[in-house]
Amino acid sequence: MKKKIIFAADIGGTTCKLGIFDQNLRCIQKWAINTDTSDQTGVQLLKQIHNAFVEKSTMLNYQLEDVIGVGIGVPGPVDFETGVVRGAVNLNWPESVPVAKIMSGLSGRPVFVDNDANVAALGEMHKGSGQNHSDIAMITLGTGVGGGIVSNGKIVHGHNGSGAEIGHIRVDHDQRFKCNCGKSGCIETVASATGVINLVHYYHPQLSIQSQLLPLINDNSVSAKDVFEAAKKGDLFGLFIVEKVSQYIAYLASILSVTSNPKYIIVGGGMSEAGHILIENIKTAYQQIVFTPAQEGTEILQAQLGNDAGMVGAAGLIKTYMIEKE
Amino acid sequence: MKKKIIFAADIGGTTCKLGIFDQNLRCIQKWAINTDTSDQTGVQLLKQIHNAFVEKSTMLNYQLEDVIGVGIGVPGPVDFETGVVRGAVNLNWPESVPVAKIMSGLSGRPVFVDNDANVAALGEMHKGSGQNHSDIAMITLGTGVGGGIVSNGKIVHGHNGSGAEIGHIRVDHDQRFKCNCGKSGCIETVASATGVINLVHYYHPQLSIQSQLLPLINDNSVSAKDVFEAAKKGDLFGLFIVEKVSQYIAYLASILSVTSNPKYIIVGGGMSEAGHILIENIKTAYQQIVFTPAQEGTEILQAQLGNDAGMVGAAGLIKTYMIEKE
Repeated sequence: MKKKIIFAADIGGTTCKLGIFDQNLRCIQKWAINTDTSDQTGVQLLKQIHNAFVEKSTMLNYQLEDVIGVGIGVPGPVDFETGVVRGAVNLNWPESVPVAKIMSGLSGRPVFVDNDANVAALGEMHKGSGQNHSDIAMITLGTGVGGGIVSNGKIVHGHNGSGAEIGHIRVDHDQRFKCNCGKSGCIETVASATGVINLVHYYHPQLSIQSQLLPLINDNSVSAKDVFEAAKKGDLFGLFIVEKVSQYIAYLASILSVTSNPKYIIVGGGMSEAGHILIENIKTAYQQIVFTPAQEGTEILQAQLGNDAGMVGAAGLIKTYMIEKE
Repeated sequence: MKKKIIFAADIGGTTCKLGIFDQNLRCIQKWAINTDTSDQTGVQLLKQIHNAFVEKSTMLNYQLEDVIGVGIGVPGPVDFETGVVRGAVNLNWPESVPVAKIMSGLSGRPVFVDNDANVAALGEMHKGSGQNHSDIAMITLGTGVGGGIVSNGKIVHGHNGSGAEIGHIRVDHDQRFKCNCGKSGCIETVASATGVINLVHYYHPQLSIQSQLLPLINDNSVSAKDVFEAAKKGDLFGLFIVEKVSQYIAYLASILSVTSNPKYIIVGGGMSEAGHILIENIKTAYQQIVFTPAQEGTEILQAQLGNDAGMVGAAGLIKTYMIEKE
């Protein structure tokens, strides 16, 4: 009997990462297409994605009947039950787009849709640092701070889809920096790539530490990457900032440990590429702050899948909600 | 055909609340027996509970074959998978007790065991303020701060059983008060009945507010109840403390809203009997701090079941993990 396959799409603002997987989430083929943002209804883009799937799977000798389901990750708020995306700025979708309905109309197959942070967590759970454990959490450090929580093997969406919106936990009670969400003091304002810069400009005038970052700071062109690079070379101001940032992330990890209590707390996103220096600082601060019994056996790890996490997790939606449900 | 029944026990340090329920969690009979703490292995107590169940159900014309399962709540850490209680100070169980194994040996029926905070949350979900929603959280304010989280209809235990151990989130970053857990600054140190007293003795010397609580404070006999009573009568110092406590609880609620994102955040435990003044202060502070989209449709409510929550939730274990699983 011929094997069944899964279609997976991670829709981003510039490219869509597409993949064809078998039912054990082994990747048969992966490729990318440009994201067409010309159509505000999303239909055009979803047709292009569907056509790309059909073309590629036909070449591989599969037919639509062989497809168990289509998993899709999108950069915007999603109603998981209905597969409706409630707008997506980066895709130029100002209004709601019924992604699941459109896509299942095109393919005739079941469609599951979730936001990019949740599918990335699911991807890491199935094929990355999560090692298939049923309780994991992912902290995504990019321009903002995103997250995904898996409890009892299921993504935690919550009642209005704000499950794992962990970037908006207030950790800076002085509320020094305004957040994109309209409030102030969110962890996103002090522990994202943007947050690193916020802290640099806040602490620099107060500290008389010599730093190789000085020209960049004065030039207003310092990046989070610069700060981590400097820290790795032993720059004291860089180390000071990395420690501050790590403390905030460790605090978030300590909260996750006594709410959903994940086995693996996976740190991903662009900033996680700082690697060892970030992860080790987080671990040290975590041990100091977390409820001792919650720490037992809990591991803080760097994400493994990089940019593929979303696509793998999109396929993971079909594995979790269709295959394993049977 | 004769109806099936559920045995439910909420084992406390002084009494065990027992109940016989039908499969829709309607209570057929409830009663209590004293908790026998003379036997450190727990066998004696579990036998007494089993005998009480048999006696009562026989009187009601039921036999053991009619029992779907036995649900048990205990005041200690539980390994949910195995039903082993890893010690319970209040029951005089210094070592692990395999409660599920002992109880199913006695009854021949399936047994589910969970800790008291989790079963209370499940009880409120099924028959109290939770209105059967599949995403709820409970904050239990007693001598300490406990909690229970239900996500996607299942209790969140996490990988090592520290799921919803929300009393140990650090909220007092000055770490003024030491927590029973060995760390400092946990929300338990500032928002439990003990926490209220901590705050009273901390702020009293700093504030020149007149207060009817003064004699009790000087006498070192002030209770959390006294503080809430005074606040209700307009006592300014009482109001000040209630506001501080409410802010901490609101912060915890804001964290729950962007982690598990419950529809209902249910405030229970002895301190919740303060009622309106506490709930309204929490709501006000919550709106100021929480991520705006997470707040939509989220309700903060006082618990409804009082002391019965644990017993109802113990029966709820059978409904959630046996009946609804079918």
